[in-house]
Amino acid sequence: MKAIRRLSVMTLSSRFFLKGISQNVALYKLGHSPMSGRSSMRGYYAIKYPVLEGHAHVRVVDLRTDAVKKPGPAVLRAMGAAAGSGEVHVTELQKIAADMCGMEDALLVPTATMGNLIAVMVHCSERGDEMIVGDLSHLHMYEQGGSAQVAGVHTTTATTLPDGTFDLEQLESRIRLGYPLTYYCRTRLICLENTHNTQGGRVMPLSFLQDVRALADRYGLSVHMDGARVVNAAVAQGVPLSTILQHTHSVTISLCKVLGSPVGAILAGPRDFITRAKRCCRVLGGSMVKAGVLAAAGKVSLQHSIMMGRLEQDHRNAKIFAQAVHDCDLFTLDLASVETNIVRFYLNGCSWSPSEFCDRMGMVCEKEKAALGQPIQVPMYPFYGNSIRAVWHPMVTAEDTQLAIKKMHFVISQYMEEKPRAIKA
Amino acid sequence: MKAIRRLSVMTLSSRFFLKGISQNVALYKLGHSPMSGRSSMRGYYAIKYPVLEGHAHVRVVDLRTDAVKKPGPAVLRAMGAAAGSGEVHVTELQKIAADMCGMEDALLVPTATMGNLIAVMVHCSERGDEMIVGDLSHLHMYEQGGSAQVAGVHTTTATTLPDGTFDLEQLESRIRLGYPLTYYCRTRLICLENTHNTQGGRVMPLSFLQDVRALADRYGLSVHMDGARVVNAAVAQGVPLSTILQHTHSVTISLCKVLGSPVGAILAGPRDFITRAKRCCRVLGGSMVKAGVLAAAGKVSLQHSIMMGRLEQDHRNAKIFAQAVHDCDLFTLDLASVETNIVRFYLNGCSWSPSEFCDRMGMVCEKEKAALGQPIQVPMYPFYGNSIRAVWHPMVTAEDTQLAIKKMHFVISQYMEEKPRAIKA
Amino acid sequence: MKAIRRLSVMTLSSRFFLKGISQNVALYKLGHSPMSGRSSMRGYYAIKYPVLEGHAHVRVVDLRTDAVKKPGPAVLRAMGAAAGSGEVHVTELQKIAADMCGMEDALLVPTATMGNLIAVMVHCSERGDEMIVGDLSHLHMYEQGGSAQVAGVHTTTATTLPDGTFDLEQLESRIRLGYPLTYYCRTRLICLENTHNTQGGRVMPLSFLQDVRALADRYGLSVHMDGARVVNAAVAQGVPLSTILQHTHSVTISLCKVLGSPVGAILAGPRDFITRAKRCCRVLGGSMVKAGVLAAAGKVSLQHSIMMGRLEQDHRNAKIFAQAVHDCDLFTLDLASVETNIVRFYLNGCSWSPSEFCDRMGMVCEKEKAALGQPIQVPMYPFYGNSIRAVWHPMVTAEDTQLAIKKMHFVISQYMEEKPRAIKA
Amino acid sequence: MKAIRRLSVMTLSSRFFLKGISQNVALYKLGHSPMSGRSSMRGYYAIKYPVLEGHAHVRVVDLRTDAVKKPGPAVLRAMGAAAGSGEVHVTELQKIAADMCGMEDALLVPTATMGNLIAVMVHCSERGDEMIVGDLSHLHMYEQGGSAQVAGVHTTTATTLPDGTFDLEQLESRIRLGYPLTYYCRTRLICLENTHNTQGGRVMPLSFLQDVRALADRYGLSVHMDGARVVNAAVAQGVPLSTILQHTHSVTISLCKVLGSPVGAILAGPRDFITRAKRCCRVLGGSMVKAGVLAAAGKVSLQHSIMMGRLEQDHRNAKIFAQAVHDCDLFTLDLASVETNIVRFYLNGCSWSPSEFCDRMGMVCEKEKAALGQPIQVPMYPFYGNSIRAVWHPMVTAEDTQLAIKKMHFVISQYMEEKPRAIKA
Repeated sequence: MKAIRRLSVMTLSSRFFLKGISQNVALYKLGHSPMSGRSSMRGYYAIKYPVLEGHAHVRVVDLRTDAVKKPGPAVLRAMGAAAGSGEVHVTELQKIAADMCGMEDALLVPTATMGNLIAVMVHCSERGDEMIVGDLSHLHMYEQGGSAQVAGVHTTTATTLPDGTFDLEQLESRIRLGYPLTYYCRTRLICLENTHNTQGGRVMPLSFLQDVRALADRYGLSVHMDGARVVNAAVAQGVPLSTILQHTHSVTISLCKVLGSPVGAILAGPRDFITRAKRCCRVLGGSMVKAGVLAAAGKVSLQHSIMMGRLEQDHRNAKIFAQAVHDCDLFTLDLASVETNIVRFYLNGCSWSPSEFCDRMGMVCEKEKAALGQPIQVPMYPFYGNSIRAVWHPMVTAEDTQLAIKKMHFVISQYMEEKPRAIKA
Repeated sequence: MKAIRRLSVMTLSSRFFLKGISQNVALYKLGHSPMSGRSSMRGYYAIKYPVLEGHAHVRVVDLRTDAVKKPGPAVLRAMGAAAGSGEVHVTELQKIAADMCGMEDALLVPTATMGNLIAVMVHCSERGDEMIVGDLSHLHMYEQGGSAQVAGVHTTTATTLPDGTFDLEQLESRIRLGYPLTYYCRTRLICLENTHNTQGGRVMPLSFLQDVRALADRYGLSVHMDGARVVNAAVAQGVPLSTILQHTHSVTISLCKVLGSPVGAILAGPRDFITRAKRCCRVLGGSMVKAGVLAAAGKVSLQHSIMMGRLEQDHRNAKIFAQAVHDCDLFTLDLASVETNIVRFYLNGCSWSPSEFCDRMGMVCEKEKAALGQPIQVPMYPFYGNSIRAVWHPMVTAEDTQLAIKKMHFVISQYMEEKPRAIKA
Repeated sequence: MKAIRRLSVMTLSSRFFLKGISQNVALYKLGHSPMSGRSSMRGYYAIKYPVLEGHAHVRVVDLRTDAVKKPGPAVLRAMGAAAGSGEVHVTELQKIAADMCGMEDALLVPTATMGNLIAVMVHCSERGDEMIVGDLSHLHMYEQGGSAQVAGVHTTTATTLPDGTFDLEQLESRIRLGYPLTYYCRTRLICLENTHNTQGGRVMPLSFLQDVRALADRYGLSVHMDGARVVNAAVAQGVPLSTILQHTHSVTISLCKVLGSPVGAILAGPRDFITRAKRCCRVLGGSMVKAGVLAAAGKVSLQHSIMMGRLEQDHRNAKIFAQAVHDCDLFTLDLASVETNIVRFYLNGCSWSPSEFCDRMGMVCEKEKAALGQPIQVPMYPFYGNSIRAVWHPMVTAEDTQLAIKKMHFVISQYMEEKPRAIKA
Repeated sequence: MKAIRRLSVMTLSSRFFLKGISQNVALYKLGHSPMSGRSSMRGYYAIKYPVLEGHAHVRVVDLRTDAVKKPGPAVLRAMGAAAGSGEVHVTELQKIAADMCGMEDALLVPTATMGNLIAVMVHCSERGDEMIVGDLSHLHMYEQGGSAQVAGVHTTTATTLPDGTFDLEQLESRIRLGYPLTYYCRTRLICLENTHNTQGGRVMPLSFLQDVRALADRYGLSVHMDGARVVNAAVAQGVPLSTILQHTHSVTISLCKVLGSPVGAILAGPRDFITRAKRCCRVLGGSMVKAGVLAAAGKVSLQHSIMMGRLEQDHRNAKIFAQAVHDCDLFTLDLASVETNIVRFYLNGCSWSPSEFCDRMGMVCEKEKAALGQPIQVPMYPFYGNSIRAVWHPMVTAEDTQLAIKKMHFVISQYMEEKPRAIKA
């Protein structure tokens, strides 16, 4: 975290005074990703807004992640009211979460990363167990290899397809048929990610989930879903969570992304699974004795029907922005791939790198005031595979989305204006 | 957690209707430890108060743990105000904590257990590293062996002396002189616990800390302090935290015990140590992206001078109760050992087990109303080594302490009354 | 081992009495692989030769593995002479091996699997380290995931190409650029396998090795070679071992495959690497105090120039057999892929499975005596990816190879004869 | 290994030229322990005999370890005959070993260290399992913490008493009664060491074994015996191995100590245990495909009745030497503690350190020839706890033992002669 910030500040200051390609750029500057194209999509960090005198009213539309926003007033009220009364809230939250998931039991854990790690530890309980994960999954790429490092579980990967799914035949080929011959791991677990972050918020078709579960049943394997954003999948498919999760044995759901809690995630599964999960949670240091205040927030996050309504709106806004991106020659984007609150797109025949483009979206300049009526900062992240990612969440309104489009058009116009000069030079 | 509760409820209901040895006992009953003499001192669980009609005004003095109480109003206010503004609070909390500890840097983690585990992971960074811990330390007894299970670090123990310290000669004999011969672990770390929980809140003399550090320096070892309750040590010794911690390389401090935050602990140490701790924290699933609300509570916990004042009062109250215990023939207690907020004592030539005694302290009966003027419940835990533990915290006032003594005297009188009958039978 | 044998015996007896599709088959039967198409290539097990009365002179050409053969007389002599004089032989063997590899130092270990595991442990020495291996490598598929299970090292895979190499661009994309951000593993190691077992004994081009090393140097990574059969690569390329190994940091070489020792493998690398390897070897239980007798055998294995000459002959014989396979319509085989002592081929439009074909090669029947002059058993293994694998080693002569071809022709003629009947039915 | 040798040579050369306290010492010098008092008892290494011209007939009585000697002719013959015929010998060895142990099955492994590690891995199969071992046991002190490092198993220790046993009440107090509460490890295994190396070859009374097993049964625990030298215990107690091992669930027996094989150890236990042990053995890299030659040696080691007879003789010789030590004022030794082939004694009011005494025993000097008729070198090791250890094995005859005593007397006379001078100085 600190490391990121340090890098960021370094980049910030060096670029802030380097006033850019043309004279009239880079007056304001949002903290931005220090990472190049093939970079983290979870390098979230706090922003220091460098506000120029006389430009106090900069409008910010933050599209970097759905985990930065403030808890809403309902969550805050619940936390204030609940604080300290403890265990009861935790029990209730876990009951509510289990019911929503259609699972027997659930456990509040500090983070989705810990939820996933515990799931691996419980499902892969014997020495020599192995799991199959997608090669572009969060579990494989962004959790520091905890499955091996902490849990001693070996990993084999299936290729993550553009829609976040696997080729079923390839998936089957990853199962070690040789077990119990001593050369072989025992394949125990298939991990899915839904919606799929790296692939741009893609929703797994229910038929795919059904097929994976059938395969798992045939070989006696478990299915765990990294469902940090599975609520978005449910909203996009218009089904209850349990319709999705009936095909899995366990699931991790983040409470602090679109659900708006400050801290926490839910791990849900069979009763026996959760009993063992509690031991793993304890040994990792995740058993928070007085988590009532977090649980109170979590309950509101899960129950608040308005929140679910907001998710639909997020998806709608994301699609509107995606359409605007699609309409512009400078970008490549598959409209059909925009299923939830994430828009992932590529620069197409453009001399700017994703980083440079994001810099422009996050800066404001003198000219902008005239062109847009007000300075607008639209920070977003350069993302895996040389793409750019923008994420919607309840704090980004329809109006904000229009401002983001406006800003994008302005940045494109700047690019067009500068390009000939660049080429001349 | 759930397992405990289930046991507890079971015991509760079975004993609640079993009206006890004499007719006039056991009308009210607090949840109590399901564990026998050699039991956990951290089996905290929620209490259901079974209130008898017409006895609405039962007075409860809860001496089971310093982690059950509600956050005070200052903490609650801070959380309400801060919620969501995030990273800034975390940074500030870590700065404040580091300064108080006299350390370069600090990290907010979900629990003290994780703080300790991370410290082990960072100090013992090579394959084949070993640490020395006390055989009665929390790290050795109550953290599920995470050092080996998660971190792969081997443990050798030194005998925990009654005051929580070690014999220095024995400690030195635990260091593997044979390294780097391949047969041997590399001794890397000495872990101390201050105040010492199992030994009844004992405070480590500063001279002992100095000696341990000198030994560690001589052999190139690190010293980590499990300082879940080190603030109590500082108050008892009348010195700043940094005076204690100057003799250690790193420390874990719980924010949710006497300091009154709902969730969280501080791990402090050198800058490089904390940099590496952040990687360990991430892989364990302890990196909470939006921990601002917790950090806001933590800041108040650390800064609130009134809180520190309250700790002195806790220690005073504990000593007053200890004196009353000491004055009673039924108990054994070393007055000099009561240094902070924990009173540990033994039954002496009494036919009741610690469990039975605690049951009586936690129940109220008809007779009691007449004898005491009001029903009083004083739950405490049977503890390690056939002892009984009572813990003070800011929600237990001087008046409460007098009530607890009153109740104890009543329970003793009951015992005296029943004894002859028991002997006759 | 036992598990395999049990399976094998079961299959053996059930099939032995089930006299096959036609009357005149299956009189003799060699133990054969109990595994189906996508099976282990290292399921080696002992064979019980069921000899029919009056057919005492069955000729056996064993093509299942290069690890079954007896040590030659030179090795046996060395072991007899050396036994017990101990350490000296170990030191000499390690010196000789290091010199041949062009490495600073070497270590005798019990098996190549341990050699690889130690290499992973030493190269990936920090928590959160990751290695890149081929998805069809022995390390990834047939060593029970020891890298994760024992060493806690995370794995990411590159696609093993048909010649055992990787696509360099894909390889580079596997390196975690995000480190030291806490989300990321630290990529530390690239593992190569040369010759490549699953891909049929393929030899890595020296230019590929050079490219991989350049990439590794660019990112500060280590290169380890699983060179269980790297001696075959050296012979095939006509270069000294050190020419190949100059591109790697460490290497494992099996002494008990083509080199003909009964037990042991060499792990070679820089001096500091071997010093740390010795600690890992000890903790795994691989430090054999009196390994002199094994070392004496190993020295002969490495030094015996005749042995190297025999390897060339193995390669020649393998090519001769491959040509015969290639000439037959029933099979698919890429002649260019036969570079060393392994021939891997596929059945092509044949109603038999690889298992059934191998059964026929391993059986003898009445008719055979008349057709071939003598009964010939040619056991080989069904192999990964529905292929069949035959392996040459110094105990298979040019004459044996001709007999194997003869037998194959006979089996094909049997197939042709039975086919119409099968189709009719 | 190398590290040790390097140290040794260093010490050797520096001391060789430093001709000692008096003029007439230190002409010949055996390699000796580089370690001080609290040192390894397994720092075995090869000796270079520095032979002075004209003293070609130095007699060497090597009492450093029972693992240095050459395999006897019977073992050598078996190895020569068996080499390469493989699996059959392994199967037979394992059957013989299991029968001798009274166990269902057995497994040949490379070293006793691996045998112990596998036993820990199999008995402690769940995350959070813990074992109880003696604080002076080989497993705890000299196996680099593999139980934690490799197997992730937490250790708690019982105090090793002078006779190698435990106090049963203390042992029972180490069992975690709190499990399955999440704070606690699950106690799974008690490890014994018989005969006990560090305590000087002490034999565990059968009644103690019975008591430990009864305790283990009461709590559902397993008992593993590190029986590297359990054959010595059987000989000393005059009972079959199975009489001892009936009280344990599994055992490790070294084949390369008194049993005289060059390499290998036996792990024996229930069938299911061995099935799982084979997987652990494979993943550690201990599965030697062609171990027939080692197994052939092992068979002879186990079966050779003469060898067992030799063990009795070792014990007799050790006792004779012990008596001579006991008769000498310079030493402290408890005669009753000499039960097998190890003699451990202390210097008593002597200004020499154990290292200096061992140096004198390992050197020869001019005077000696006159006094003893011939130069005699009697290397032994300074040992744990400031003691000196001498170990008997079949290559040390009754005559050798007398020579060792003679040499000891000579060294003592030298000490007496030098002492006044030392005091004067």
